[in-house]
Amino acid sequence: MNVYFSCSLTGGRNEEGVYRAIVDHLLTAGHDVPTAHLARPEVMSLERVVDPQEVYGRDVAWIQACDAVVAEVSTPSHGVGYEIAYALSLGKPVLCCYRDGSTVSKMITGNNSPGLTVRSYRGPAEALLIVDQFLEAMNHGTPESTR
Amino acid sequence: MNVYFSCSLTGGRNEEGVYRAIVDHLLTAGHDVPTAHLARPEVMSLERVVDPQEVYGRDVAWIQACDAVVAEVSTPSHGVGYEIAYALSLGKPVLCCYRDGSTVSKMITGNNSPGLTVRSYRGPAEALLIVDQFLEAMNHGTPESTR
Repeated sequence: MNVYFSCSLTGGRNEEGVYRAIVDHLLTAGHDVPTAHLARPEVMSLERVVDPQEVYGRDVAWIQACDAVVAEVSTPSHGVGYEIAYALSLGKPVLCCYRDGSTVSKMITGNNSPGLTVRSYRGPAEALLIVDQFLEAMNHGTPESTR
Repeated sequence: MNVYFSCSLTGGRNEEGVYRAIVDHLLTAGHDVPTAHLARPEVMSLERVVDPQEVYGRDVAWIQACDAVVAEVSTPSHGVGYEIAYALSLGKPVLCCYRDGSTVSKMITGNNSPGLTVRSYRGPAEALLIVDQFLEAMNHGTPESTR
């Protein structure tokens, strides 16, 4: 599957370890992850040199082409929030996962849009389990709506 | 006009002074601002008790009913990013304004969606001027695309 991974860049990188665990897990399972570079620590200097309109056009095209979006939402981010809404407007399945105890916007935790799954995790291992359950539910055509 | 004002809640309230200036300015000019309470310092305790699904349903209905969205984007926020994308998907005019020097997501600064205006300001007075210019351009049917 083609999975668009979305995470905070400028908003903060506290959960970078989980970002990498999710992306590595998806790649190892054979999925395409166009945004895999976002989980790497050097992304901040890499992305800084890219033109904003180029980033926007690139990310929007990747979302249009993906089968699903996996968003890590422990750290507030305009870009991630934008991408979640944009993907849902296109009818893409979206998983929002966050570290248990994070304060997450009610526009996400209270969101009952079709195709959206919102889950908390206690550590990287549980995050990967949640990602697997989300993709498996997609394959079986039974989109979750747990929150 | 009915103007939906969007700003960070849980992500941080550093720009609360500007939020209040914008909302007071809009109300004084005779506009309806359904989210006026978001600019008040007591909002954090008020919103905490409201059910997430109620907040989501309320805010989505307000966006559907509004003539325009004014978003302050100096402080990262999933909710604000979500609301910007949602409003644009409905064809609403959206102003994103931020304090000069803030690091703003390229999904906003590089965004060339029709109806979106992105502007920076150096202080509250300039923020109000930008809001007025945005609403005036709307009235004249000449949506800006300055960024």
